[in-house]
Amino acid sequence: MIEGETLEIELVNNTDVTASLHAHGVDYETSSDGTRMNDSVVQPGGRYVYTWRTHTPGTRTDGTIEPGSAGYWHYHDHVVGTDHGTGGILRGLYGPLVVRRTGDILPDKTLTVVFNDMKTNNLTQAPNFTAKLGERVEFIVIAHGNLFHTFHIHGHRWADNRTGMLRGPQDHSRVIDTKTTGPAESFGFQVIAGERVGPGMWMYHCHVQSHSDMGMAGMFTVTDANGNVPGHSMDDMPSPSTSAMPGHSMEGM
Amino acid sequence: MIEGETLEIELVNNTDVTASLHAHGVDYETSSDGTRMNDSVVQPGGRYVYTWRTHTPGTRTDGTIEPGSAGYWHYHDHVVGTDHGTGGILRGLYGPLVVRRTGDILPDKTLTVVFNDMKTNNLTQAPNFTAKLGERVEFIVIAHGNLFHTFHIHGHRWADNRTGMLRGPQDHSRVIDTKTTGPAESFGFQVIAGERVGPGMWMYHCHVQSHSDMGMAGMFTVTDANGNVPGHSMDDMPSPSTSAMPGHSMEGM
Amino acid sequence: MIEGETLEIELVNNTDVTASLHAHGVDYETSSDGTRMNDSVVQPGGRYVYTWRTHTPGTRTDGTIEPGSAGYWHYHDHVVGTDHGTGGILRGLYGPLVVRRTGDILPDKTLTVVFNDMKTNNLTQAPNFTAKLGERVEFIVIAHGNLFHTFHIHGHRWADNRTGMLRGPQDHSRVIDTKTTGPAESFGFQVIAGERVGPGMWMYHCHVQSHSDMGMAGMFTVTDANGNVPGHSMDDMPSPSTSAMPGHSMEGM
Repeated sequence: MIEGETLEIELVNNTDVTASLHAHGVDYETSSDGTRMNDSVVQPGGRYVYTWRTHTPGTRTDGTIEPGSAGYWHYHDHVVGTDHGTGGILRGLYGPLVVRRTGDILPDKTLTVVFNDMKTNNLTQAPNFTAKLGERVEFIVIAHGNLFHTFHIHGHRWADNRTGMLRGPQDHSRVIDTKTTGPAESFGFQVIAGERVGPGMWMYHCHVQSHSDMGMAGMFTVTDANGNVPGHSMDDMPSPSTSAMPGHSMEGM
Repeated sequence: MIEGETLEIELVNNTDVTASLHAHGVDYETSSDGTRMNDSVVQPGGRYVYTWRTHTPGTRTDGTIEPGSAGYWHYHDHVVGTDHGTGGILRGLYGPLVVRRTGDILPDKTLTVVFNDMKTNNLTQAPNFTAKLGERVEFIVIAHGNLFHTFHIHGHRWADNRTGMLRGPQDHSRVIDTKTTGPAESFGFQVIAGERVGPGMWMYHCHVQSHSDMGMAGMFTVTDANGNVPGHSMDDMPSPSTSAMPGHSMEGM
Repeated sequence: MIEGETLEIELVNNTDVTASLHAHGVDYETSSDGTRMNDSVVQPGGRYVYTWRTHTPGTRTDGTIEPGSAGYWHYHDHVVGTDHGTGGILRGLYGPLVVRRTGDILPDKTLTVVFNDMKTNNLTQAPNFTAKLGERVEFIVIAHGNLFHTFHIHGHRWADNRTGMLRGPQDHSRVIDTKTTGPAESFGFQVIAGERVGPGMWMYHCHVQSHSDMGMAGMFTVTDANGNVPGHSMDDMPSPSTSAMPGHSMEGM
């Protein structure tokens, strides 16, 4: 979404349990809260329209600043299993929600990584991603469940701010390559694939040692102009995961 | 407190164990450190004056900047149970400590949430809060104990900086609605109750799923001009907790 | 290192297991990635040159800003025990890596604290440090292993940004004295020893209560002009640890 836009999204519940949509970051009345207590959940076989609004930054009548809605947010079920959606989240009822500010630089490609307890994008083995050298690649990182994680990627870094990119020479945001992310936190950033480090197979992983050892590590493969990775035959290369992401970004909706 | 002020606080120990006060963020000599090794603890039946000083930002003689004391800080016992006050903290010997900068906007109401292991404000069921639509409500969030938490509130967001508010159009602090908070970390922010989302019952909770499921979730009820919450009868509405906070803000002292 | 410099570092493997160097923050090709899959590990008895490059901030041809390499980074083994170096890290194969920006203020002294599971600098009892009143002391804090920690120091605070110091009166970075740090995260800051609080024995510790209780607490002793700590005889004072840090800063290399 772009700040100022409104999204109406109809949830058609084809499952046999009551489910809902709860969004982070956007504006919604209690009727779109997605909680049982606010009567905004959907029975099996039912359908329901959730309305998510966004707004640009502005100045309030008292002179204070009202922040805009832009951010790397996400949505998830809030009712399956428990009144906090613990069962729904466990099963993968979640996805990213990007709200951009007018003028934000668009990526060539968006990759989403959800650390959900010991799974990544609800897979026991984290998925692999591919990009071409020089492509502007956006990562969205979300955590869910009960555990805390530290997202790390080899050979690439980002700014620890709203967009993950510096706005100008006077933007002194800290540059990092590892970030603690707890349940329901999310962040995003853009990198130029292989910038200053070249093509290659670059790991991304949770840096909690037992988590990476148990499968929370995947590949971000950056290919050269010919689609190759120097030093690796095509047989070596991990297949890009095709069905890794249980949800998908709603920014285009 | 306001930057520049000094607080002298006398601890009268009516318990039967040695206790102390250790503050975060403010200036204190070792005699006000609140640790056994610095001889600044209080025997049962004793009394002791702790001195907490604060200062405005300034420039050092070498030209570097000395930060001011403003912040959402807190204080706690540092000697009950262990030399780190583990027993005192477990029992609730803590509270918020707000140091404001001259010119900081004052809230209409301050609410404090302390996630202390699996308790919230030392209650097994998190307390409920109430505000009127449009009130400027300040939240202070503190964690204690052994666990990490992610504070989340429905329908409201804040800026991830000192005040939780943007200073002006050029303040690009990240806007968030969920934040990892580990033991002895603290932060604060102000929201306009119900801004752009209306009155209603808005949950706040730790977003670690097992924590919210086990009681670390309470209600932030925003009433309309008539004191009602649309869609809920008065019987529905949670009672505001009256004795929820074990300590209370010292900003007015 | 200073932004723009390149470091070539030869690893001579005198152990009986394959080992490697993986760096955070700097630029390296896959041949210096330090991973088994990128064929950049060192057999027992072998030697290998890793090349770590750094760069200043700049503007890309598309007008976006490329961040510089400056930061409080670190390096570690990535192959001992598991393909993520879990065994190497457990045994202490890590160290800090500081990349400075031209013009950064240099400290009088640098102290490194690595929280590695329940050890600090690979010791079961955290080491003690000493500084003179008024010295500019740089702390580098790194976490490793499986646990999350909250670094806290008594009587001193820092800015939560790249350098831990405010750049000028318009730098509104949040000032903190406690910070969550997860595996492979790192940060640094400078304090003026004893500023506004005087000489004394100031604890630094992980503020997760069970961690500090079990030894993740040491002393930062600030001596007065005569080398004394008021209120403590020399017998009282903790000996500065002489062999505490398993690695050492590479900034001078």
